[in-house]
Amino acid sequence: MKLIKVNTTSNDYNIVISSNFESLQQNLIDVGVENKKVCVITDDNVSKYYLDNVINILSDITSKLSYKVIPHGEINKNLGTINTIYQKMIEEKMDRDSYLIALGGGVTGDMVGFASATFMRGNNFIQIPTTLLSQVDSSIGGKTGVDFEGYKNIIGSFHQPELVYINTSTLSTLPKKEVSAGMGEIIKHGLIADKDYFDFIKTNSTLINQLDSDVLEDLIYRSCVIKSDIVSQDEKEKGIRATLNFGHTIGHAVERLFDFKLLHGECVAIGMVSAAYLSFLLNQIDNKQLEDIKKCIRSFDLPTEINTLEPETIYNELFHDKKTKNDILNIILLKGIGTCEIRNDIEKERIIEAIKYIL
Amino acid sequence: MKLIKVNTTSNDYNIVISSNFESLQQNLIDVGVENKKVCVITDDNVSKYYLDNVINILSDITSKLSYKVIPHGEINKNLGTINTIYQKMIEEKMDRDSYLIALGGGVTGDMVGFASATFMRGNNFIQIPTTLLSQVDSSIGGKTGVDFEGYKNIIGSFHQPELVYINTSTLSTLPKKEVSAGMGEIIKHGLIADKDYFDFIKTNSTLINQLDSDVLEDLIYRSCVIKSDIVSQDEKEKGIRATLNFGHTIGHAVERLFDFKLLHGECVAIGMVSAAYLSFLLNQIDNKQLEDIKKCIRSFDLPTEINTLEPETIYNELFHDKKTKNDILNIILLKGIGTCEIRNDIEKERIIEAIKYIL
Repeated sequence: MKLIKVNTTSNDYNIVISSNFESLQQNLIDVGVENKKVCVITDDNVSKYYLDNVINILSDITSKLSYKVIPHGEINKNLGTINTIYQKMIEEKMDRDSYLIALGGGVTGDMVGFASATFMRGNNFIQIPTTLLSQVDSSIGGKTGVDFEGYKNIIGSFHQPELVYINTSTLSTLPKKEVSAGMGEIIKHGLIADKDYFDFIKTNSTLINQLDSDVLEDLIYRSCVIKSDIVSQDEKEKGIRATLNFGHTIGHAVERLFDFKLLHGECVAIGMVSAAYLSFLLNQIDNKQLEDIKKCIRSFDLPTEINTLEPETIYNELFHDKKTKNDILNIILLKGIGTCEIRNDIEKERIIEAIKYIL
Repeated sequence: MKLIKVNTTSNDYNIVISSNFESLQQNLIDVGVENKKVCVITDDNVSKYYLDNVINILSDITSKLSYKVIPHGEINKNLGTINTIYQKMIEEKMDRDSYLIALGGGVTGDMVGFASATFMRGNNFIQIPTTLLSQVDSSIGGKTGVDFEGYKNIIGSFHQPELVYINTSTLSTLPKKEVSAGMGEIIKHGLIADKDYFDFIKTNSTLINQLDSDVLEDLIYRSCVIKSDIVSQDEKEKGIRATLNFGHTIGHAVERLFDFKLLHGECVAIGMVSAAYLSFLLNQIDNKQLEDIKKCIRSFDLPTEINTLEPETIYNELFHDKKTKNDILNIILLKGIGTCEIRNDIEKERIIEAIKYIL
């Protein structure tokens, strides 16, 4: 079992990384769940595997326990689903002292976090992420939200959980494609913050693809350390947190233009290739580093290019991103492997060139 | 012109109290509106009087200016209206650096604040309250929200404005009934925090009812000072801020049971009478003080009782309030005039007795 402490301006909490659910009950008691109203929210995929487990663990410690199963998938990450969670919370007479528990992937976590942030102006919530992507990325840092009219996470808020409990064994029931999608963010962590970690990922790609439990635990721990360190420095994304958006500016545009039919991690992979090429164009990484990045991405069955889109279409879509402020594009560029910078001075021509590279 | 500084954990801002819009432009520039995208949200009542004014003031300082008129009234304070604001913000390509301006009463302010809090996880907003109730209460302190399935403000968040600009002359177009409704909260400020202020209100009731501009400006200033002082101490209502709920526990229950057909200030007036009587029952105020409170409330044409409801119905409804945590009722009681305390140990029988007093 490994433990990481996250300290943000609005809340301090632990990330627990374990290979089972054994210490979940004690961790829940430690954060104050005992004798409170608790509602577990999960989706119709995850409920089949882990809902009974979590309900059993909670059953003798809460004052009132309930659960709700929501439909899975990004397509249901909307205000309509949020309304059904609000209705459940009212039905269960939940209040500011109650706890929501998000059991599932990033979609569930983001929605439960948003419902918790906005019900009675904020109650408590706990993340039990069950996908690689949510374990290393979305469950940490308090970004919550839903999609609206095709714009990903455009409605949301910052709301920190009380606890993130990661059981790595839940990855055994995860489709291969979803593991790959998680690797997109993991590679990103190495690229923007830790060259050694990037090398570790490259070296261990076979073991990672085989879901070797020791390597996975290391991987998740190191990614969580990088993410929580950045989030602790800059909860509300006024500065360094924006570096976590490496690959996401173009990635999100692609994701929107494909109507969310590609996985987030796949779009991030494509976006990272484009951003890496832009870094190469500006002499911030060399050709070997660029090829290394693409090879690493491909080793996890992630795409490095797409087709059927026009460069100008993607370029125009960039301005709908949350990172765009006052029509100025902020783009994260690598400076070698393991460091990066936020830039807002890149000419359109260069960006178009970098977009063409992935087409 | 008077100025109050509000300092909360999440944001510092000014409340400007003026008898006109003359210094609005400079205040907007001071908070950073210049060369930003700005959208003014107002309702179909207020737009007739003040929208042109505000648009003119903004027209030569923003990079992109737009406005949206929403339907007035509590009945439209819901997520459906919020969605139309989100759509407008997307249409105008607004981002985290943009500004929403709420021009209107509490319903407009609460909704615009909530849209601003949740669009891209938070952008900037400015309050230009045009009703007495919103000038002395809802525009200050960052409580935002909407009603949901009959529960008032049950969906919302804390999100502080960048500026509150109060033009007291806007009260000249306010229906008499709405002025009275504002007086409910103003009397509350005196009762919970400042005996001298309560006496000032009693003494000046005739001038207040005549909307004497000097007295009004004093009144609004003193109420804003009390409210912002409490909010600065306790932004998220973990402690002293709850005292602002004096009269609101029973008031909100009445408001819900009457399907929001009574004005908020009227329900608060009734709730205050009930809470004052409870304070009297517990020997915390004497009979003369109780009568004084009722007389003061009546002098502004506010109700001190209702009919057609059963005591048990109101009692059960109390537990749906946001102030109820883990099924424990928190009730604010007076300790003399000008001080109060938060209590959670009042027996049901006493509360029922206090409810019967207003029936």
